[in-house]
Amino acid sequence: MDMLWSGWGDPAKAAPLPDSVTGLLRDLLGVKPRDTDARALDEISVPESSLDPATSKALADAVGGEAHVRTDAESRIRHTRGKSTPDLLRIRAGDVEDAPAAVVLPASHDDVVAVLRVCAEHGLAVVPFGGGTSVVGGLAPERRSFVALDLRRMNGLLDIDPVSRTATLQPGLRAPDAEALLAEYGFTLGHFPQSYEWATIGGFAAARSSGQASAGYGRFDEMVLGLTLATPEGTLDVGRAPRSAAGPDLRQLILGSEGAFGVITAVTVRVRPVPHTRVYEGWRFASFEEGATALRRLAQDGPRPTVLRLSDETETFVGLAQPDAIGAAEVPSSAGCMAIAGYEGTEEDTTYRRERAAEVLRAAGGTYLGAEPGERWAHGRYSAPYLRDSLLDAGAFAETLETATFWSRIPELYAAVRTALTETLTAAGTPPLVMCHISHVYENGASLYFTVVSAQGDDAVAHWEPAKRAANEAVLNAGGTITHHHGVGTDHRDWYVREAGPLGVEALRAVKRRLDPDGLLSPGILLPVD
Amino acid sequence: MDMLWSGWGDPAKAAPLPDSVTGLLRDLLGVKPRDTDARALDEISVPESSLDPATSKALADAVGGEAHVRTDAESRIRHTRGKSTPDLLRIRAGDVEDAPAAVVLPASHDDVVAVLRVCAEHGLAVVPFGGGTSVVGGLAPERRSFVALDLRRMNGLLDIDPVSRTATLQPGLRAPDAEALLAEYGFTLGHFPQSYEWATIGGFAAARSSGQASAGYGRFDEMVLGLTLATPEGTLDVGRAPRSAAGPDLRQLILGSEGAFGVITAVTVRVRPVPHTRVYEGWRFASFEEGATALRRLAQDGPRPTVLRLSDETETFVGLAQPDAIGAAEVPSSAGCMAIAGYEGTEEDTTYRRERAAEVLRAAGGTYLGAEPGERWAHGRYSAPYLRDSLLDAGAFAETLETATFWSRIPELYAAVRTALTETLTAAGTPPLVMCHISHVYENGASLYFTVVSAQGDDAVAHWEPAKRAANEAVLNAGGTITHHHGVGTDHRDWYVREAGPLGVEALRAVKRRLDPDGLLSPGILLPVD
Repeated sequence: MDMLWSGWGDPAKAAPLPDSVTGLLRDLLGVKPRDTDARALDEISVPESSLDPATSKALADAVGGEAHVRTDAESRIRHTRGKSTPDLLRIRAGDVEDAPAAVVLPASHDDVVAVLRVCAEHGLAVVPFGGGTSVVGGLAPERRSFVALDLRRMNGLLDIDPVSRTATLQPGLRAPDAEALLAEYGFTLGHFPQSYEWATIGGFAAARSSGQASAGYGRFDEMVLGLTLATPEGTLDVGRAPRSAAGPDLRQLILGSEGAFGVITAVTVRVRPVPHTRVYEGWRFASFEEGATALRRLAQDGPRPTVLRLSDETETFVGLAQPDAIGAAEVPSSAGCMAIAGYEGTEEDTTYRRERAAEVLRAAGGTYLGAEPGERWAHGRYSAPYLRDSLLDAGAFAETLETATFWSRIPELYAAVRTALTETLTAAGTPPLVMCHISHVYENGASLYFTVVSAQGDDAVAHWEPAKRAANEAVLNAGGTITHHHGVGTDHRDWYVREAGPLGVEALRAVKRRLDPDGLLSPGILLPVD
Repeated sequence: MDMLWSGWGDPAKAAPLPDSVTGLLRDLLGVKPRDTDARALDEISVPESSLDPATSKALADAVGGEAHVRTDAESRIRHTRGKSTPDLLRIRAGDVEDAPAAVVLPASHDDVVAVLRVCAEHGLAVVPFGGGTSVVGGLAPERRSFVALDLRRMNGLLDIDPVSRTATLQPGLRAPDAEALLAEYGFTLGHFPQSYEWATIGGFAAARSSGQASAGYGRFDEMVLGLTLATPEGTLDVGRAPRSAAGPDLRQLILGSEGAFGVITAVTVRVRPVPHTRVYEGWRFASFEEGATALRRLAQDGPRPTVLRLSDETETFVGLAQPDAIGAAEVPSSAGCMAIAGYEGTEEDTTYRRERAAEVLRAAGGTYLGAEPGERWAHGRYSAPYLRDSLLDAGAFAETLETATFWSRIPELYAAVRTALTETLTAAGTPPLVMCHISHVYENGASLYFTVVSAQGDDAVAHWEPAKRAANEAVLNAGGTITHHHGVGTDHRDWYVREAGPLGVEALRAVKRRLDPDGLLSPGILLPVD
């Protein structure tokens, strides 16, 4: 199934906001219902494809037939940009000037190599396309004429090694399909980002994804043991052992390269047994600081839950800690900060960890709220992007951004980003609701995930831009990383360049020039165009 | 204190072999006592230093005075090559043709930058020198005129963050000194490789070191959160957050770069509380295969000991599983394979893990041998290199090599390397004793560490070369990595190039050319000279 072209997910799952929320938006944020002026797909006119017949023919030859080279309007619209709020606002308004010249669907590594050859010969740029869920402009290169390389036909399980607990997956495999294939062998990947229902293995690798169960299963880049990368200069195969001292870890050079170095055509990941037990529970803390300290205790001294997150006061108040509960009559008491701790594994192991973790959380000031908030969180864990669509429909603006830093800097980073967003949007006449949660914990630090809701302003995209810039500046100034799991894309690129530093960027450019001398691959994504 | 120039460690700790071992060597391997013809340090003549007065002056200006630019024979001999067995055999024979032109001792990052500038101006190569413990030719560049950049003056704790549990260390800090500095704050690094007593923080980072407690504390490259690298083109600072999605992980590009990209001048590591409890215990398994399966169980499903290792039948028989016990009257029953499982942490946590791990090991066929073998292993854990000196003194040849792969390939890799070493040395007239242990375990695989002892042959260095080559070929052919923790240096370079593949090597060369355009840094180490 294709994702809703103008929003998120399965159109059948769209859920309008309850009146109570609409009222809240109006009264609290001054959101005015507006003509969303959303067009129907067939009303949108796409610029003519720049693909000439000879190139089209060569591409068709590369991927096994004309059926796999699509230049129809719908295909091109569906591959235009990603799913950030500005992306949605623009496409709803019919702006598809970033549409690819064509959508090409390779079926194999060799097909990809052949496509890259054709594109090099014909001077076409290439942007790999997995689930299309980028929220950082990772699908909108700085070049008009490009091919979206849709990897959906490469969706197989290539190999499984039950003894070593590894599996080799194709990049176009969607996460739920990967889980289904692995489950046949009793395994799970354990990677559940909010984009889970749509995103693909290749995208996870290219963008260094991190899932909601990262406390237990690790980040996606920590799961990757091997990679195959097709580049215009040939194929790179890395990962002969789980760990090695044989030079720099080239896997970690490919992970996060966002299509700028090549196209990931196979990913070998570690897998784990499907857990027997899954328990998610709620806890309340008096303040974000108290809750953060409690999470840090568990992250540093254990026992480590599989899922561990903490909403700040505002997010808890609004109920976003459990999106399912928003607007429901039984919104739980909203004082303080809600945390979710989840445990997955064998019955014995989860019981042990859960009991010990409960002691730690209690000692750190936590109040146990039982399983209900946890189950609610688990049930609603993928629904926030649907909520955003409803907010946009209601005339509100809603966007998220995220960062990470070391524990000692979390308070400063939290305050800096909140202040930047609040001040900028308030000065622009649309005072926002800024919510935050800690979504990923490590021994040495954590991520902060912010959600901003406000009125839209006249030109919603332009209205948001200064706030996003201010947030980015705040992140860098407070010592955070410009992105913990969304990626760089084009949206974060200028700040990423500052974070990596001139010599870091030069080192990466040197790699790019060697693997992609003509600059065909995702131009302007991750790195500035040369 | 300086290390013994012609062997390992503290000369006061040298221990001659017991007669029983000498007898074993003679009867089993045909080792003949030989005139070791070892020279005294002051009998060795060093080639004249190529350093001209102008360069010497410029270097002295860079590092704060003439006292820190040493061209005397002793200094240069002490910085000649590393501590592989061929290195020791050559230096004992008075061969110091690889001596540096000078030993330069910078005191700060800025000093290092200044040295690199001087070297670029004067066409001198630079090889960073930490503990001098390389066993892979990592200190012998393919260029005669070079400076050994001895980092011993850069041995401070720059910063400690007890909340985030991070510490920033200088590269010349030796591991025991790092532990002492951290212990003042209640922390440990937990990195205990066999070279622990001499090796430095910078060397651990540059060579992707892995310690004996890696099951609990992780590899050194997993401990590193930030790095500062001085290059001829400027400074690279990486690591703003424990984890990030901001592009490729540049830390993992610097880790393992072995001085070829720059000089590591600061390392930010994660630290952990000093454990309250340390328990090491012995287990016996009927076979290496049975023991390996038991280790895999713990590595995959836990609970994870802090130390976990398994000697094969030969190593167990010889007693090398506990070097302290070699030749002692009370060598334990030598049937089967000896494993060591160690637990460090809080009392409660070690008790829980120990009891649960014991159940797993017992269910997998293990026989509990009590704490004595564990304590013996712990007591003798750094003594193997002293043992090698004694073996060389007794006229035997002794060397180690190591690799890693995925669990399912361990049996094939084990057999392949054993066979290669045994056949080559037997055909050369010196049938060897080949011993092996699993020294590091991961969810998805493990390392294999081989020790070879044989008679020396007429030219011991030349005699070993075909065996080492055969072992390297066997490693690559059986799917292993050419090095799990010793590094690449010059000795593994040609096989590393095959492991990384042409495009992998080209990507790294592109980085090197950008950071070190004149090829001053560690030429021929890690990567072939351009």
